[in-house]
Amino acid sequence: MVLEEIAGLIGGAHVLSRDELAGRPRDFWTKEPTRARALVRPGNVAEVSRVLALCNARGQKVIPEGGRTNLVQGTQAAGDEILLSLERLNGIADPDARSATVMAEAGATIQRIQERAEVAGLRFGLDFGARGSASLGGALAMNAGGLQALRYGTARSQVAGLEAVLSDGTVVSHLTPFTKDNTGYDLKQFFIGSEGTLGVITRAVLHLHPLPAGADTALLAFDDFGAAAALLGALRAQLAGTLSSFEIMWGEFFDFNTGEQGVGTAPLARGHAYYVICEAEGFDPSFDRQRFETLIASAFERGGARDAVVAQSERERREIWNIRENFDAEIRLFGTLVDYDLSLPIDAMESFAEAVRRELQAKAPQNRGLHIMGHLGDGNLHLTTGVPDPEMKPLIDELVYGLIAAHGGAISAEHGIGITKKRFLRHSRSPEELALMRRLKTTLDPANILNPGKVIDVTGPVTLEGRVAQ
Amino acid sequence: MVLEEIAGLIGGAHVLSRDELAGRPRDFWTKEPTRARALVRPGNVAEVSRVLALCNARGQKVIPEGGRTNLVQGTQAAGDEILLSLERLNGIADPDARSATVMAEAGATIQRIQERAEVAGLRFGLDFGARGSASLGGALAMNAGGLQALRYGTARSQVAGLEAVLSDGTVVSHLTPFTKDNTGYDLKQFFIGSEGTLGVITRAVLHLHPLPAGADTALLAFDDFGAAAALLGALRAQLAGTLSSFEIMWGEFFDFNTGEQGVGTAPLARGHAYYVICEAEGFDPSFDRQRFETLIASAFERGGARDAVVAQSERERREIWNIRENFDAEIRLFGTLVDYDLSLPIDAMESFAEAVRRELQAKAPQNRGLHIMGHLGDGNLHLTTGVPDPEMKPLIDELVYGLIAAHGGAISAEHGIGITKKRFLRHSRSPEELALMRRLKTTLDPANILNPGKVIDVTGPVTLEGRVAQ
Repeated sequence: MVLEEIAGLIGGAHVLSRDELAGRPRDFWTKEPTRARALVRPGNVAEVSRVLALCNARGQKVIPEGGRTNLVQGTQAAGDEILLSLERLNGIADPDARSATVMAEAGATIQRIQERAEVAGLRFGLDFGARGSASLGGALAMNAGGLQALRYGTARSQVAGLEAVLSDGTVVSHLTPFTKDNTGYDLKQFFIGSEGTLGVITRAVLHLHPLPAGADTALLAFDDFGAAAALLGALRAQLAGTLSSFEIMWGEFFDFNTGEQGVGTAPLARGHAYYVICEAEGFDPSFDRQRFETLIASAFERGGARDAVVAQSERERREIWNIRENFDAEIRLFGTLVDYDLSLPIDAMESFAEAVRRELQAKAPQNRGLHIMGHLGDGNLHLTTGVPDPEMKPLIDELVYGLIAAHGGAISAEHGIGITKKRFLRHSRSPEELALMRRLKTTLDPANILNPGKVIDVTGPVTLEGRVAQ
Repeated sequence: MVLEEIAGLIGGAHVLSRDELAGRPRDFWTKEPTRARALVRPGNVAEVSRVLALCNARGQKVIPEGGRTNLVQGTQAAGDEILLSLERLNGIADPDARSATVMAEAGATIQRIQERAEVAGLRFGLDFGARGSASLGGALAMNAGGLQALRYGTARSQVAGLEAVLSDGTVVSHLTPFTKDNTGYDLKQFFIGSEGTLGVITRAVLHLHPLPAGADTALLAFDDFGAAAALLGALRAQLAGTLSSFEIMWGEFFDFNTGEQGVGTAPLARGHAYYVICEAEGFDPSFDRQRFETLIASAFERGGARDAVVAQSERERREIWNIRENFDAEIRLFGTLVDYDLSLPIDAMESFAEAVRRELQAKAPQNRGLHIMGHLGDGNLHLTTGVPDPEMKPLIDELVYGLIAAHGGAISAEHGIGITKKRFLRHSRSPEELALMRRLKTTLDPANILNPGKVIDVTGPVTLEGRVAQ
């Protein structure tokens, strides 16, 4: 009945039934089909508005979806829910060079926005592995982070103006290109990072940046964590605004990924405790290279680095990044892979990693390896291990998230909460915060039709008074 | 009765009656005393919580106040309201060099935070003229902008973690130092820029930046607006992350402020249409200076600049900035000063300025002068004129805000809305946006006790359904 009504609003060709979705995996990572009763594809903002108004009136639950590349079951649908795909809203306007902004629709992929910006001599500051599939709407809804957050900030920082549709179909549009805009509450902040639970993002005006003229990339080895962290501090200052990445790999991951079963070869000796990839992108290639090499040489001579190599070609640069970014061998090794996306104070990282290793050995000795790597410059570590049996995952979840709370960390840095991390949210947020989130959710979506069950439940032990009831 | 109860909570010495406030001006800009019935000064977060819980239960309206330097009557109190001063919460923790953050309480001044950061070899990215009086809590509540927003962003960008107290006394605390933190809704964003209407900010963890080693400053003259804007684009790229200011002054302001009645002397010829101050702060003084001078020379030789001077000493640098920042002569000239803080697409600035000049001549020929200057790099202009009679102000308000709307601008870039701009908010925000703001306000402060009447009214023609009722 609802589906027929929606077909009347947007055309029957854009309402796909469950049967038609059989071959369509429910996310980027699995081959399982979606359980949703249907998928609807409005063609413009007005249609999104009409579909939501109808669903709200009918109590029909709606799961907004972009490129389905999120890692937290953020677009998982139950059998009575419908998927709302933004794929037909995929336009990108011509970039405005003077204001350094571009307007794009939610369904445009990150990569296409990057390419459009680059043609205009500009850089879109958001980049991550799933760029070819991930959509702008999804990236903003999840406040994606990625490889350039150190320089340009997370997805939130890229947004000048935003348009979103509320659960009742109200279009809240503020598509301005301004850096400064204190005209009342900054409503876009409410939608960014709310994982589709407070509104459906339809369009955005994005800040762009000057396009750098070249990249300098180095790989360094350390045996002392403090020396690696000190290099970050030094490069942050000395490379001014050109430092774009500062990544760390614990030795076990580096040695594995450059070893016999790995994906690449080591351009410097294996066996060290930590490896760092740093990259700067500037506008004056000859000076930039000279300064970069001087700083890396200084890290080697006086800064505690045990070894260092600077990429001399784009091929060498890609080989260095491949060690960090290629997880094919890891996936083969680990089988059932258990992975975490964590923020930590840099000072707590070393002891956190040691504690995880110790507790895994004590409580889950069957686990396979412990790979730690991540965006040291953002205080963001990714931790991966393998388990012989998927049923071990809850044990390891409790172990890792318990240690994260004890070390003052956050259970999600850039991947979000979705369903996967919902029950651990209490490790990072207080009962008062959870109650306030619930109050905002019930205010903006009183019928609980928008991506229900993601991030925060609207019923259960946290009361609206900001106290834990049990 | 309420005051006695508050005295019981925080001590009678910290409840100042109306009589005791007689000599205390209601804001930084006027000598008029406050009309508030009392001022209360809790000494810590728990006391702020207890005071608000009590006021909420009693229906007592509360005006949170910091340094009272805002320009929009943002802390103005009526006779039945009480002021809640955060001045006793003024602690600043030792900066954490490794995470480049510092925790500070709401009552700490911007200048003290800057100084504490600098001692640790770090830079606090927020700076504006009122730094010595303005408090952190006020700056965050107003999402202050200022002189370094081009490089470091507005106040919002400085905040890693935040603590605020809701109208019912609930403490919502998330004092984490992370760059990336996707653990549910980013609640701090709701309080920043909400002008004390959604909660009282009590503490924050602030991002800090490497402290630059030196500043290079130039003053340039242009007769062509497009050439000035093109220089901004070029410097943004070529100076990478070191460009910290790009200010513009229309010729009338420059000529006045460097003239007989002005505050400084002109280090280059007067009579040009536009003057630009640009400043870069880097970490490699000799290279930075060489690159800066090369770029300025190129602007002069090929970029359309008619004249240019690079400051050769800190004294010369201060002389250049004094032309832009010293408004003493302007205040003398204008008498009753009417001023605006506007965001505009850079492409629309020239025609906007011309339209204002034309309409002022046609509709308010008695006005005295038209001074335009501002942060071109942020798309933010300040426009000032004088009127012989304060009663002319509403006419000029309508004229300027009408033209801002017609040119796609925003009625507030960095000063906020408060009371002063509330009735013009409709020029920048849609009925749907205003209705959503109202819905958020009534959700978070159902008794409307927190800074009532600022930013958005909770009653009146905008309905909660997102439509205009009349």
